[in-house]
Amino acid sequence: MGAQVKYVLDETKIPTEWYNIVADLPRPPSPALHPGTLQPLGPADLAPLFPPELIMQEVTAERQVPIPEPVREIYRQWRPSPLIRARRLEAALDTPARIYFKYEGVSAPGSHKLNTAVAQAFYNKEAGIRRLTTETGAGQWGSSLAYAGAMFGLEVRVFMVRASFNQKPYRKAMMEVWGAKCVSSPSTETEAGRRVLAEHPDTSGSLGIAISEAVEIAAQNADTNYALGSVLNHVLLHQSVIGLEALQQFEMADDYPDIVIGCAGGGSNFAGLVFPFLGEQLRGGRKVQAIACEPTACPTLTRGRYAYDFGDTGHLTPLVRMHTLGSAFVPPGFHAGGLRYHGMAPLVSLVQELGLIESRAYNQTPCFDAGVQFARAEGIVPAPEATHAIRCVIDEALRCKQEGTARTIAFNLSGHGHFDMQAYLDYFAGKLEDRNYDEAVLQAALADLPKVPA
Amino acid sequence: MGAQVKYVLDETKIPTEWYNIVADLPRPPSPALHPGTLQPLGPADLAPLFPPELIMQEVTAERQVPIPEPVREIYRQWRPSPLIRARRLEAALDTPARIYFKYEGVSAPGSHKLNTAVAQAFYNKEAGIRRLTTETGAGQWGSSLAYAGAMFGLEVRVFMVRASFNQKPYRKAMMEVWGAKCVSSPSTETEAGRRVLAEHPDTSGSLGIAISEAVEIAAQNADTNYALGSVLNHVLLHQSVIGLEALQQFEMADDYPDIVIGCAGGGSNFAGLVFPFLGEQLRGGRKVQAIACEPTACPTLTRGRYAYDFGDTGHLTPLVRMHTLGSAFVPPGFHAGGLRYHGMAPLVSLVQELGLIESRAYNQTPCFDAGVQFARAEGIVPAPEATHAIRCVIDEALRCKQEGTARTIAFNLSGHGHFDMQAYLDYFAGKLEDRNYDEAVLQAALADLPKVPA
Repeated sequence: MGAQVKYVLDETKIPTEWYNIVADLPRPPSPALHPGTLQPLGPADLAPLFPPELIMQEVTAERQVPIPEPVREIYRQWRPSPLIRARRLEAALDTPARIYFKYEGVSAPGSHKLNTAVAQAFYNKEAGIRRLTTETGAGQWGSSLAYAGAMFGLEVRVFMVRASFNQKPYRKAMMEVWGAKCVSSPSTETEAGRRVLAEHPDTSGSLGIAISEAVEIAAQNADTNYALGSVLNHVLLHQSVIGLEALQQFEMADDYPDIVIGCAGGGSNFAGLVFPFLGEQLRGGRKVQAIACEPTACPTLTRGRYAYDFGDTGHLTPLVRMHTLGSAFVPPGFHAGGLRYHGMAPLVSLVQELGLIESRAYNQTPCFDAGVQFARAEGIVPAPEATHAIRCVIDEALRCKQEGTARTIAFNLSGHGHFDMQAYLDYFAGKLEDRNYDEAVLQAALADLPKVPA
Repeated sequence: MGAQVKYVLDETKIPTEWYNIVADLPRPPSPALHPGTLQPLGPADLAPLFPPELIMQEVTAERQVPIPEPVREIYRQWRPSPLIRARRLEAALDTPARIYFKYEGVSAPGSHKLNTAVAQAFYNKEAGIRRLTTETGAGQWGSSLAYAGAMFGLEVRVFMVRASFNQKPYRKAMMEVWGAKCVSSPSTETEAGRRVLAEHPDTSGSLGIAISEAVEIAAQNADTNYALGSVLNHVLLHQSVIGLEALQQFEMADDYPDIVIGCAGGGSNFAGLVFPFLGEQLRGGRKVQAIACEPTACPTLTRGRYAYDFGDTGHLTPLVRMHTLGSAFVPPGFHAGGLRYHGMAPLVSLVQELGLIESRAYNQTPCFDAGVQFARAEGIVPAPEATHAIRCVIDEALRCKQEGTARTIAFNLSGHGHFDMQAYLDYFAGKLEDRNYDEAVLQAALADLPKVPA
């Protein structure tokens, strides 16, 4: 059986600039709108929540944005992440395809989220901010921001969706190890939280509520800002280090992907790997087939509408143009907590509208099948989110076998599953249910989309 | 604040030979004795449990033992592990000391145990063995052998101490992801297990019982062998890759340790880092101060007797000469499950008798203090076992500050704490108790040591 091959870059090769796909797109992204006036948002509207540098990055059309040296210094703690040729998986599948994965689970919090957490913490520290608030669902983002806060000496307060807070105490423990405060949401610390608790004391919480709580505290305190772990343009910008490193590593491997695959919740790990390759293509380089993978239970890209919508259920955030299932959409329960968002990053949505990427939806059982097959061949236990990408990779590799074509497939293994072992236990016990979204819930949520004049 | 610095070796620099300290010691280790005859053990006595190559490695006095290429191929999945200069910790302590750590948590099971698991699985596969049995306490060893079994196509059956089996279901899940079977011990699958269950149906199990179960099945089945994760000479031999890589990495760093530190349960991660440095010293090179760190609750090296003793409570294993608290010794409860063994590797015991190393015992609360301080500076959340080494490192670094001496300190960060977050939750909740061993229990266990004629 062929052995795994790692392509390890020297740390001097950590990119010095992030890549911004906006510069290479045939049309600019639609502006975000103020939730009250429905007019395009100005920088001043975001100033209560974000530092100036991140607001600038949110709207810039510059192709390259310099990575500050203190951010690169922290990146060195785990970057460059390895690009790995999965030769044992290729052998197990008996496929002529060449399969590579970029492994982002090497960060201490265990996922790609740390790439943007470090950058956001840095810019907030530079702006004189003392404290950050955020929300977290499964906990990957909350623990990444906790880590970044420890690195730059910022207080971090994380509102964790109550259901996850109760189910995943170890993510909370990790945040506390790094000195952050993790609070069950809805909480009594905010007006938004108290209102929900009064009406629905038994609520299991939601990302939408947790966002409202984090935003409320940041808006009310001059020394406090808000941080978001996906969706926004500046988050996707920071994640471009993944693909920029991969481009260098494919040069080392003397290969180049025909297909690039990632799972997509808010869109940031997908964009992080894929956009630098799309950039090459848009500037006249080689074409790649890019595939975003999502759960059938929350099929934003495959079944959502491309429209202006709110980022939260409380309708406090700006409106952005994106693929959305409607902010009132509630997916059924499934294990990939990072893929439960009703919307999608505006830039990922735009590249799908432009025909630059395609998307596929999968049920969770075949994803866990793929995750276990991967783990037995390559050793790493993937996070449930990442198994969606692996399912697609295995399907494509088997198609190559059938067609006798030796295509090169690259995917983003966005994180490990060390804090998701209950999902694997449920899988082995035959307790996983494959649930699709509810069509009636979807139609009701779509009917409720805000009316924005063209 | 200074940034972390990683010393990353190219994978061509993975050692091609393991290092055997026996070749450099002024006197040979005492032979293991047959539990029935008390005569020195012959290779034939071990043949029902181990493949010929491992039996040879157990007794060899050769300085170098070649690492088979298929083992090096699997090593490449995570080796060489990084040597990291903990400059942020140095800055936090305001010490002139230079602190380095070798990080073994980069393996997929998350600890150094995989270094020997892969080697043992390989030699067993070569010998035509179809199945391996083993015991596990905290689960790091069981999951490492499960991984290695997946890599070489061997069935793996792990007897997990009942208390751990119930408390740590996620380690079991990990073993199952890699295709191993994990059974609560005592089980009904063995004579040894059934006997204990009949007498003590509510037992929480012990490593001693689990060893008896694993050995029983291996001894009774020609296609099945037994594997042990620490203590034995061949295990320490395999772990020498840690120190051999570190020697190369210190050359890259243009530095050399004055002090080398590791935690010690059975002794394998300690020996893995330390023995190659002791070897340099024994062959006329630079002297290092080597410190083994253990819990005050199970103080094998600091309070045990250097004597012949059994490896298990059931007295089925050979007798080895080692530091021991007596095979009947039961430590009070504490969180570092990997440091609960009553004995110590014979080779670690011998080098302490020869005055080549020293040992220190710590209570768990100051160890967790150190672990949290380390995590906030360097990002990585250490396993409870490894926090014992970190406590010693911080104490030594503070001594350097007091004395104004810039010594170089190296330690083995043997694993991450992702599966030990309950311990951190207990620590933050103020629920940890600092318990010393019970002197009466120790004296009774020592009085019970087997009588071996000189």
